[in-house]
Amino acid sequence: MSVPTIEPGPVPADEEPPDTGERHRLTAVTGLAALSLDAMASVAYGPEAIVLVLATAGAHGLGLTVPVTLAIAGLLAVLVTSYRQVIAAFPNGGGSYAVAKTHLGTRTSLVAAASLVLDYVLNVAVGVTAGVAALTSAFPALYGDRLWLCLVVLALITAVNLRGIVESAKAFIVPTVVFVGSIFVLIVVGLFRSAPVSTATADGHASALAGNATTVGTLLLLKAFASGCSALTGVEAITNAVPSFRVPRVKRAQRAEVALGAVLGVMLIGLSVLISRFHLQPVRGVTVLAQLADASLGHNWAFYVIQFATMILLALSANTSFGGLPVLLKLLARDNYAPHVFALKADRHVHRHGVLALAGASAALLVFSGGDTNTLVPLFAIGVFVGFTVAQVGMVRHWRLERGSGWRGKALLNGFGAVLTGVAAVVVTGSKFEEGAWLIVIALPLLVAAFEAVYRAYTRIGDRLALGRVPEHPHRHRSIVIVPVSSLSRLTSEALTAAVSLGDEVRAVTVHHPDPEDRAHHHALARDWAAWNPGVPLIPLASEHRSLGRPIAVYVRETAAAERDARVTVLIPEMEPERLWQRLLQNQRGALVAHAVRRDTDAVICRLRFRLP
Amino acid sequence: MSVPTIEPGPVPADEEPPDTGERHRLTAVTGLAALSLDAMASVAYGPEAIVLVLATAGAHGLGLTVPVTLAIAGLLAVLVTSYRQVIAAFPNGGGSYAVAKTHLGTRTSLVAAASLVLDYVLNVAVGVTAGVAALTSAFPALYGDRLWLCLVVLALITAVNLRGIVESAKAFIVPTVVFVGSIFVLIVVGLFRSAPVSTATADGHASALAGNATTVGTLLLLKAFASGCSALTGVEAITNAVPSFRVPRVKRAQRAEVALGAVLGVMLIGLSVLISRFHLQPVRGVTVLAQLADASLGHNWAFYVIQFATMILLALSANTSFGGLPVLLKLLARDNYAPHVFALKADRHVHRHGVLALAGASAALLVFSGGDTNTLVPLFAIGVFVGFTVAQVGMVRHWRLERGSGWRGKALLNGFGAVLTGVAAVVVTGSKFEEGAWLIVIALPLLVAAFEAVYRAYTRIGDRLALGRVPEHPHRHRSIVIVPVSSLSRLTSEALTAAVSLGDEVRAVTVHHPDPEDRAHHHALARDWAAWNPGVPLIPLASEHRSLGRPIAVYVRETAAAERDARVTVLIPEMEPERLWQRLLQNQRGALVAHAVRRDTDAVICRLRFRLP
Repeated sequence: MSVPTIEPGPVPADEEPPDTGERHRLTAVTGLAALSLDAMASVAYGPEAIVLVLATAGAHGLGLTVPVTLAIAGLLAVLVTSYRQVIAAFPNGGGSYAVAKTHLGTRTSLVAAASLVLDYVLNVAVGVTAGVAALTSAFPALYGDRLWLCLVVLALITAVNLRGIVESAKAFIVPTVVFVGSIFVLIVVGLFRSAPVSTATADGHASALAGNATTVGTLLLLKAFASGCSALTGVEAITNAVPSFRVPRVKRAQRAEVALGAVLGVMLIGLSVLISRFHLQPVRGVTVLAQLADASLGHNWAFYVIQFATMILLALSANTSFGGLPVLLKLLARDNYAPHVFALKADRHVHRHGVLALAGASAALLVFSGGDTNTLVPLFAIGVFVGFTVAQVGMVRHWRLERGSGWRGKALLNGFGAVLTGVAAVVVTGSKFEEGAWLIVIALPLLVAAFEAVYRAYTRIGDRLALGRVPEHPHRHRSIVIVPVSSLSRLTSEALTAAVSLGDEVRAVTVHHPDPEDRAHHHALARDWAAWNPGVPLIPLASEHRSLGRPIAVYVRETAAAERDARVTVLIPEMEPERLWQRLLQNQRGALVAHAVRRDTDAVICRLRFRLP
Repeated sequence: MSVPTIEPGPVPADEEPPDTGERHRLTAVTGLAALSLDAMASVAYGPEAIVLVLATAGAHGLGLTVPVTLAIAGLLAVLVTSYRQVIAAFPNGGGSYAVAKTHLGTRTSLVAAASLVLDYVLNVAVGVTAGVAALTSAFPALYGDRLWLCLVVLALITAVNLRGIVESAKAFIVPTVVFVGSIFVLIVVGLFRSAPVSTATADGHASALAGNATTVGTLLLLKAFASGCSALTGVEAITNAVPSFRVPRVKRAQRAEVALGAVLGVMLIGLSVLISRFHLQPVRGVTVLAQLADASLGHNWAFYVIQFATMILLALSANTSFGGLPVLLKLLARDNYAPHVFALKADRHVHRHGVLALAGASAALLVFSGGDTNTLVPLFAIGVFVGFTVAQVGMVRHWRLERGSGWRGKALLNGFGAVLTGVAAVVVTGSKFEEGAWLIVIALPLLVAAFEAVYRAYTRIGDRLALGRVPEHPHRHRSIVIVPVSSLSRLTSEALTAAVSLGDEVRAVTVHHPDPEDRAHHHALARDWAAWNPGVPLIPLASEHRSLGRPIAVYVRETAAAERDARVTVLIPEMEPERLWQRLLQNQRGALVAHAVRRDTDAVICRLRFRLP
C-alpha cells in the first residue's frame, strides 16, 4: 500500500509513540524485512492469477507461464527503478497522492487517493481470502466453510484493531523472513526434481477450468499479464517510509527497494519455472502455492509449515490496511477532502468508527466474492495500477520541471512504467468488467466526487463561520432559563439551583394532557409547587396531542420571540442511576424534550445529570 | 391476545383518538366481527396441530381426530362460559393480569403478565409463519424460501407499524367475515362429498410423519388435545374490550363471546369431520386447511381465495401484537414493573423502540423455528394456557370473596376450566420440552424476575430522589462557565456571548499537544486571541496524550474542587450544517468533550448549536 506501513497498528488514546532515535531506525536489511510484507505476501496469489488465465487455453496456454512471468518481472524492474527515483525526489515519503498533489493537480491526486482507499479495503479482503485459501488447501474439509472462515479471520483482525495495539513494523520481520525463506527452499528443492514428489493436495479435486482452446491469442496473454501483475502490489511501501531509515536515508531506502525487487522477482520467476516443470493445473480448493509445496517438498510437515506461514503473512498483510487507511484519511482531512473527524488526535471511540467502517466494507467484499481470492485479485490490481500510473506520470512531470542531469532518461523510464501499468489497468478492467471490475469503475469516480463535495462543503462552512477573520466581540444579554418539570423531587430542586445560578430569570414549565388521570396529576403538582414555593413560577403548557417535546419547543420559541433582548436557555434535569442496566429505567423525557427543542429552536440546551447518591 | 385489540395500530404522536360516542361503539355482531380475528385465525393451525400428533399413530390415530376435537370444543364451551363470568365481574376490561392483580397477588399477576408478553411475541411469529404456510401451500415453488418469506412479511408489518397507522378494529371486519364465510362454505360443500374432489396440492409431497404405531396411548391423546388447544387462542379478546361495546355493555359483550365460541366450535368440529371423512394425512409443505380446501372445493379459484384469505387474516392477526403489547407494557410501567418510557405519552421515536424490539424478538423466533408453524404453535399454547389458568383461578377467588347467588356453581365452573387449561399447559410443556418448550420454561421466570428487579430499582430510585417529599429550596451560587475553544470564528463569538450571559465568570480553554504542528497552531490561536481581546481569558491545557476530552474534564474537576462555592458549567459550541449529510463533516470534538466531562464530572453540560446561516 502506498502510505507509511511503519506504524501499522493504531496508536491507542493514551500513548504517543516515543520519538525514536536514529539508533532505532531502519537499515537497508531491516527496512527490507520490515516493509516488504505486503509485497512478499502477493506471491501467494500472483502466480495463481496467471495460471488461472492461461489454463483456459489448456496445456499449450500453461506452457506460457514462464514467458508471462518474465514480462511481469520486467515491469517489476521498471517499477523498482522508477521508485528509486521517487525516493530521491520525495525523501519525506511520497505515495501517489503526494506526487500527484505536487505535480498533477487536485483532481488527479483525488483519483490517486480514491484508488488508494479502494486498495486498502481490497487489501483486507484479498489478504483474508488468500490466507484462508492457504488454510483450506492444507485442510480441505474446511473448504465448504471458507466464507465463514474469512469472516471469522476478519472479525479477529477487527477485534485486535478495536482494542488498539501498538506494534512496531519490526514485529513483521520474523513472519516475513520465515515465509520468504520457505519459498526459497521450495524453489531450490523443486529445481532439483524432475517430477512432483507428491500430488496429494490436488488429488480428488476437480480442475478449476477445463480449457480446450488450442491457440493462445494476444488478448489472453495480455489478460494473463495483467492478472499476474497483482503480484506487484506492495512494491511502493518503502517509498512511503523513507523518513524511517537511518541516514543516509535515501541511499538506504533505495537499496532496500532494489533488494525488494530482486527478491520478489526471483521468487516469481522461480515459482513459474516450477509451475511449468511440474505441469501444474489449477484445481478448485487448492492454491497453486500449496500444489507447488507438495510437488517440491512432499506432503509432510514442510508443506504444513509453508501453508501456515502463508496464512499468517496474509493475515498480517490484511492487518496493515487498518494502520494505513487512517493515515491516508488524516492527510485527506487536513486538506479538507475528508471529514475532519479523521484528523482529530484520536480519542479511542473516534478511531473505532474507522476500524468498523473498514471491516464492514471488507466483509461486504468477502460476501460479494464468496470468499474467493481470484474474484478479488483483479479488482485489487486495478486500484494498484491506477496508483502506479498516477505516480509515474507525476514523476515525468517532476523531471520535466526539474531538468536535472539526465532528466530525459529518468522521465522516459517513468513514462514507460506509466504506459505499462496504465495498459495493465485498462486490460484488467475490460476483461474482468462483468465479474466485478464494474464495482471499481463505479466506486472510484463516486469517491472522487465525494472528496470534492466534502471540500466544497468545508469551503462554504468556513466562509459562513468567518474562519480566519476576527469575529464580533461577545456581549452580555439578559438570560432566561426554562426548566421542564414533571414532578417534585431532589432532582427538581437541583435543577432549579443550577438554573437560578445561571439565569437572570427562571421559569419552570410542565406539560399536561387532557385525559382525566393526567389532569389529576397536574393539579397535585400545582398544589405541591405552591406549598413548596421555590421562588420560580410553574407555567402549565397544555398539549392537545400526545407530544411532550413539542409544547416545550413552542413555548421556547415564543419566549425567544417575545423577549428579543434576552437569551433563552433550556435546562433539562435527568437522573443518572449508578448501574448501567438501570439507564433503561430512565423515562427518556429529557431526551424527547432535548430533541424537540434542538430541532425547532436555537436555544442553548443544558443537561444536568443528577447522579443518584 | 388478552389486552384490548380495539385500538390495534399505534397512535401517532400528533393524533389523540377522538372520544367515540355511543353511536360508534360495538354491537354484539360488529363486536364479534371486530374482535374475533385472532380466534378465527387460529383455525388455520389448530386442527393441523391435532392431526400432526395423531398421525404418529398411523391411520388408527388419525381416526381419533373427531373425538379429540370434540373434547377441545368442550373446553371451549367451558372457557366461553367462564369468560362470560369474567365479563360480568370485570366490566372495565379484565385480562389475566388485571384478574390476577386483584385476586392472586403480585407474583401471580406478574406470571400472567410474563406469559402475555411471550404470547404477543409468539403471536407475531405464529401468524407470520402460518400465513406464509398458506401461501406456500398455494405456490409450492416458494416452499424452500419460506423463512425468507416470513422475514419479508415481518419486515412489512414492522414497517407499517413504524410509520404509525391509525386504524379501527372495524377494518378487521371484512377479512374476518370473508375468512369465516369461506371456511363455512368449505365445510358445507365438503359434507356433501364422500371423497376428495382433488388432492392436487398434496400430490408429490412426502408424508410429514410416517406413523406405524398401531395402539393409541392416553399420552398421545393428551398430546393431541393439548396441541389442538392452540385453536383456542384469542377467545379472551372480547373480555378486554367490554368498554368498547354499546350499552348494555356487559350483555352485548357476553353475547359476542358466546357467538364467538359457537362459530369457532362449529368450524373446528366441521373441519375435523372433513379430515376424518377424506382420510387426510399431514404432508410436508402443505397445510391441512389447504388440503381440505382442495378436497372439498377442488383445485380452482375457490382454493386460491381461501389461501389468500387465510394469509391476510394471519398477517393481520400477527399485526395485533404491535397494538396490544404497548398497552400491556403501559399498564406494567404504571405499576413500576416496566421502564417508565413505556408509559410516556408516546412521541413517535419512543414508540419505535417497542416496535423494533417486538420485531427483533419475533425475527429471532422465526429463525429459531426455520419458519415452521408447527414448532411455534406449542410454545404459543403454553403461554396462552398459563394466562387462562391464572385468570380462572383468580375468578374462583373472586366468587369465593363475593359469595353472590350461585357462587359455588360459578366457582366450580372456573375451577374446572383452570384444571383443564393447567393440565394442557403441563402436557404441552412436557411433551414439547426438547423441541422448544424449554425456551418458555426459561423465559417466563426470567421475565418475572426482570419485572421485579425493575420494581425494586424504581423503589430505590424514588427513595433517593425523595419523591413525594418536599425538596430543598433552590439557592443561587456563583456560576463559572468553561468554554472549550479550538479556533477563532463566529462560532467562538456566539459561544462566548452565550457564556457571558449565563455565567458570572467565563473561561475559555484550549487543548494542545506536544507535536510541532499543533504547537504552531496553538501559538497562532493565542496571538489572535490577544488581538481579539474578548474579555475572557484563554487557558491553555497541555495534553501529553492524544486525548482531547480528558484534559478538559480534569480542568473542570479541578475548578470545581478549587471553587467550592461556585457551580461549574461547560458550554460546548457546535456548528450545525443545514443539510443532513453534512453532519458527517462535524469534527466530533463537541461530542468527545461532552462525553468525557459527563463521565468524569458532575458539571452541567450546555451545548450551543450554531445553525449555519
